[in-house]
Amino acid sequence: MTFRDPSTVRRIAIVGAGVIGSGWAAHFLARGYEVAVQDPDPVAADRFWTFLDAAWPTLEGLGLAPCAARHRVSFSRDIETALEAADFVQECAPDDRELKAELFALMDAVVPPGIVIASSTSGIPMTDIQAKSKHPERMVVGHPFNPPYLIPLVEVVGGRQTAAAAVEWATAFYRLAGKWSLRLDRELLGFVANRLQEALWREVLHMVSAGEATVEQIDAAVVHGPGVRWAIMGPCLTFHLAGGEQGIRHMLQHFEHALLEPWCRMEAPPLTDSLYERMEEGCRQAAADRPMAELIRDRDEALVRVLAILGRLPAPGSSTHLG
Amino acid sequence: MTFRDPSTVRRIAIVGAGVIGSGWAAHFLARGYEVAVQDPDPVAADRFWTFLDAAWPTLEGLGLAPCAARHRVSFSRDIETALEAADFVQECAPDDRELKAELFALMDAVVPPGIVIASSTSGIPMTDIQAKSKHPERMVVGHPFNPPYLIPLVEVVGGRQTAAAAVEWATAFYRLAGKWSLRLDRELLGFVANRLQEALWREVLHMVSAGEATVEQIDAAVVHGPGVRWAIMGPCLTFHLAGGEQGIRHMLQHFEHALLEPWCRMEAPPLTDSLYERMEEGCRQAAADRPMAELIRDRDEALVRVLAILGRLPAPGSSTHLG
Repeated sequence: MTFRDPSTVRRIAIVGAGVIGSGWAAHFLARGYEVAVQDPDPVAADRFWTFLDAAWPTLEGLGLAPCAARHRVSFSRDIETALEAADFVQECAPDDRELKAELFALMDAVVPPGIVIASSTSGIPMTDIQAKSKHPERMVVGHPFNPPYLIPLVEVVGGRQTAAAAVEWATAFYRLAGKWSLRLDRELLGFVANRLQEALWREVLHMVSAGEATVEQIDAAVVHGPGVRWAIMGPCLTFHLAGGEQGIRHMLQHFEHALLEPWCRMEAPPLTDSLYERMEEGCRQAAADRPMAELIRDRDEALVRVLAILGRLPAPGSSTHLG
Repeated sequence: MTFRDPSTVRRIAIVGAGVIGSGWAAHFLARGYEVAVQDPDPVAADRFWTFLDAAWPTLEGLGLAPCAARHRVSFSRDIETALEAADFVQECAPDDRELKAELFALMDAVVPPGIVIASSTSGIPMTDIQAKSKHPERMVVGHPFNPPYLIPLVEVVGGRQTAAAAVEWATAFYRLAGKWSLRLDRELLGFVANRLQEALWREVLHMVSAGEATVEQIDAAVVHGPGVRWAIMGPCLTFHLAGGEQGIRHMLQHFEHALLEPWCRMEAPPLTDSLYERMEEGCRQAAADRPMAELIRDRDEALVRVLAILGRLPAPGSSTHLG
């Protein structure tokens, strides 16, 4: 199976114009593509144009691709119209396994086999989505994060019947289209980012449900605490830097007792030697042999810039009552 | 139980000079306090001065409090020296329940009863820490996030024997000292932010342990995906904005199926009517009656600024191959 050079893509079909479909359309439009949006809901067109009106000034502010133009987007209730002459399809229908499998079979019958069709699903395996199609080899997951025109990540993974070439093609195409592609080696329920996000989210729901914390306390705790760090470095490197000169090994040892405590509802895995080695090796690679002091300096510089831009640094005079 | 006005604090003792203790010392020093650092480890002094040399230029860049000066910090191996004349004590010893209870009893015997002693513990309940002390009413948890001189959050909570006035005092004091105090109403293993962080972290360890994803993939997925959002708004408001006009209610309904899927190792709570109501009411309050379009505009503006400052926006010319 081979696919056309991803740099030849001109026209993209967006199937489903909810929050995610509309966001993808805005993104591709700003990157210079011709975009055909489709949604059968009678209220979807109005909603989409309102959405685009709101997002467009932001995208203009970011800087549009040279040939980007707002008028290069069309909207139809009819799926065949949207799919016609599409060089790439991004599906954004509701996250329902049956519905997606039917929809992909329908698109499969209309779109020529050399064209890649991607699903925005948050976690349904492509193996299930492609099950009813005749040309499943060109079907991939391309899972974005809201809003897709600003959050860089897209997780790319195939199903059992997907050709490796299709996953490669989509990974390269999304990069060309200004996204940060994370190619996954294996199909996984919820992929990577949503599994992590879901673990945190379930604890949120448990805490609110049990009256342990309010929505306000939870959101404040994340935004003013670990959330600032996660914009700058992932959870592994964050803890590597919190571990002193010994890095992640010290963190794992020092907080092994916390893994046994019911700090959240999830049971932790045992800290085997092999897990220690994987975490250390991964953090070493992430650190790219830079000394700890340099990593800390870079982190602090980024934190200061982010906090300053968000207006969250204490004013230098806030302790003037002193001295 | 009454305590002196928190604005009269001049001298702070830091007990334990690891990554967190050193970070607290740097923070208080930059905010204009006199700081006495103590650590019995023979290598701790050298490590502390090296740390301060590295952090100080960052703190200068941020803007020091008017009377802040590097020379206003002292270091001793002896705890009595550090505690002498302290107006506030921030304990940062290793996170061991027995050790902390002994240490607090020792400090309790030296520090006058009207002085608040706070623990930096990541999750040990103050009820356990204060158990061996004669004046437990002035003991609180003041849990920071690394690095304490940059991450604003400090979680403030008392134990069973803590006076409400001490929790109030610490909440007010940390605010005066340039931190973002989150006062918790009840003692909770891991407090709020660490429970959430721990849920995510356990899933990280499970994924690495099972070979489902690498450290590199995990960190990249967070940094380029949900992590950018969490610097700007918490998980609840993030999902509220992803739910379209119906907000969090739509998100909860649409992804109820995901709560039943094994997307992560934690079982989700049932989505009862009462949980729906709490989530909706919380998000409504967080939104402060601003219309969804305004919330989205503000979020996008903040995201653009953060991504720009981190150099993660696609270059406008990145799709010049088109058109």
